[in-house]
Amino acid sequence: MDLTKYIRNIENFPKAGVHFKDITPLLGDSEAVASCVEQLVVLIGDKKIDKVAAIESRGFFFGTLLAQKLNAGFVPIRKPGKLPYKTRKEPYQLEYGLDALEIHEDAIKKGERVLLHDDVLATGGTARAACNLIEQLGGEIVQCNFLLELEFLKGINKLRSHPVQSLLKF
Amino acid sequence: MDLTKYIRNIENFPKAGVHFKDITPLLGDSEAVASCVEQLVVLIGDKKIDKVAAIESRGFFFGTLLAQKLNAGFVPIRKPGKLPYKTRKEPYQLEYGLDALEIHEDAIKKGERVLLHDDVLATGGTARAACNLIEQLGGEIVQCNFLLELEFLKGINKLRSHPVQSLLKF
Repeated sequence: MDLTKYIRNIENFPKAGVHFKDITPLLGDSEAVASCVEQLVVLIGDKKIDKVAAIESRGFFFGTLLAQKLNAGFVPIRKPGKLPYKTRKEPYQLEYGLDALEIHEDAIKKGERVLLHDDVLATGGTARAACNLIEQLGGEIVQCNFLLELEFLKGINKLRSHPVQSLLKF
Repeated sequence: MDLTKYIRNIENFPKAGVHFKDITPLLGDSEAVASCVEQLVVLIGDKKIDKVAAIESRGFFFGTLLAQKLNAGFVPIRKPGKLPYKTRKEPYQLEYGLDALEIHEDAIKKGERVLLHDDVLATGGTARAACNLIEQLGGEIVQCNFLLELEFLKGINKLRSHPVQSLLKF
């Protein structure tokens, strides 16, 4: 199934000059979602995955579906202050200023094989921070897995040490 | 499967005096997640569902899984400014002040049968606002469906006109 027809371009969101890829038409169609999960799983191949970690909030949409498909546990990586238990925190650079991500410190055990998932790979800053959190806990990153990659932003350069797979490239 | 052993109590989160129910141990176990989805589906029975709408962010965890299980589309209901297309907005009361939720105006068609899902039913304010958004678009709310209900907060009173089902009650 060609998933690109379920992705809507929104001009100037969240700010002027940005062409946003809106995946909500895809989410609204159960057959398209099922096909998308199948296609993401093909990218993973036969690699064993213990945990799927996904980044708040849009990474959660396919993150839990992927985890179930792979019989893996699911780990939310969230913005600061959202996770209630003991956390590790990792800052990352925004265009102006800093933000951060957190993970529960018991979410991944040493040596577990982890798939990182997010909806979009853009500049790679958040994905890089998420990888750092997973590695701080002793997780082994098997793949960084994205629904969409905005290739012109070269986010892949920030993830150089990890295998990266994206379903759709723009 | 008894899911309560996968739910962790966190005292004084997000603020003093609150006993927070942390579902991340449940999310981390793929068999527990699968059982939880099965048990949520039992609550729905044989009702036909066109769309599952879920509330940002923790509602997304089981929302997409439920939608796939029911062969229904998925609709995210989000905090203001997060959805990129044309939206409807609905305010709701917090303990101090107001917040709001948004839905894409094309997310639900008139007459579609909608399951509203969130992780926790507490005071019912957000769920009520979400129901109002669904109904503004002409959706018919078949059930408000929660993983956990904090019965002492009587959130069900705010949803009186809709059927409410919760898997676990505290």
